[in-house]
Amino acid sequence: MPAERPARLKTARTTVKRLPKRARYERDVVDAVLDEAMICHVGFVHDGHPYVIPTGFARDGDTLYVHGSNASRMLRTLSAGVPVCVTVTLLDGLVVARSAFHSSMNYRSVVILGTATPVTDPDAKLLAMRALVDHLIPERWPDLRPITSKELAQTTVLAIPLQEASAKVRTGGPLDDEDDYALPMWAGVVPLALSPSTPESDERLPAGIPTPSYVRRYRRPSGR
Amino acid sequence: MPAERPARLKTARTTVKRLPKRARYERDVVDAVLDEAMICHVGFVHDGHPYVIPTGFARDGDTLYVHGSNASRMLRTLSAGVPVCVTVTLLDGLVVARSAFHSSMNYRSVVILGTATPVTDPDAKLLAMRALVDHLIPERWPDLRPITSKELAQTTVLAIPLQEASAKVRTGGPLDDEDDYALPMWAGVVPLALSPSTPESDERLPAGIPTPSYVRRYRRPSGR
Repeated sequence: MPAERPARLKTARTTVKRLPKRARYERDVVDAVLDEAMICHVGFVHDGHPYVIPTGFARDGDTLYVHGSNASRMLRTLSAGVPVCVTVTLLDGLVVARSAFHSSMNYRSVVILGTATPVTDPDAKLLAMRALVDHLIPERWPDLRPITSKELAQTTVLAIPLQEASAKVRTGGPLDDEDDYALPMWAGVVPLALSPSTPESDERLPAGIPTPSYVRRYRRPSGR
Repeated sequence: MPAERPARLKTARTTVKRLPKRARYERDVVDAVLDEAMICHVGFVHDGHPYVIPTGFARDGDTLYVHGSNASRMLRTLSAGVPVCVTVTLLDGLVVARSAFHSSMNYRSVVILGTATPVTDPDAKLLAMRALVDHLIPERWPDLRPITSKELAQTTVLAIPLQEASAKVRTGGPLDDEDDYALPMWAGVVPLALSPSTPESDERLPAGIPTPSYVRRYRRPSGR
């Protein structure tokens, strides 16, 4: 039962107060960050203390999925319906300014607030598992040994609605004090990106198995 | 006044329950992750809801520093001494297994629990600012236009002690079900790393300024 596409992700809680010029609430901006990133950081409260745990995720339409073992404390805590914050960050560059004060980083980040709901229906769970695989390695799913009902039963999948969120984006070069531009020192940007290198075949790979193009040519969709 | 080097970072709260084989509590493992990463994700509770905010940081000995504008809600909340969780994650590769169930990622992450203390002494604040610059761009500090006392006054610096923490590390290829190794499909690892590309000079750079070697040859210290 897909929810209606939310027109606004901005709420009082997701309104960016600090450097509001960098804030973005458009769904396409949020989606581009979520679809490029490979991990999210999940925040929740347990025994009164905040915890932040990195994990894989996938977006499918208006839903964010995270998953893991039934034994995971994070997933068991979230399954109870406690408030959650999911933050996704892409680091795009170092902004090398002329002063420490204006030194910065280029980044795109998304903060999502809400509560998680366990996905219990086996068919829906299978679709979520496929979304999680497709998110990380497009075209891989059809090649995989099919998931078993036992594996599915051992896996907790949580759905978090993409309803209350904000993005924050910094791009471009340093913004220095006017007087500092004349200083005889280099300033600019060192671009950064998470980059794949040559795939490493498993030691136990049978002879004659080629590396598929979706692995050889692996790259993230770029939102830039 | 440096604290004595803590012998153990492991406490009941930082004991990794899920996949304890991946857990590491040695200080050198924790330090290597902290010193390679460029951003952390800071978790705190505000009005009963968890928030996770990405920000730069630096380790100096047994202390983690974060900083930002005095106007930052995160920094104002943390300055009050509420519990904080700082998580740092490095993504090292995609583990392409033969089943969805065993598909995974190689990563190194650190979770630090504690409370933050504002650094108010101007000299200590200046040292922390230097640590923050040195962490991101070694050798840059001496080239910078010196920080002014006004800039220092506008900046909040928080110190978080590195006393209660854990690291979690996954390395190596897929760990598939024994029967699946014979399947005629590729499996292995796609290594991933945050990589710099050619520096982009600021448009307003005066003529004849060379790109310094610490920018041209920029790379992170590798913990691998």
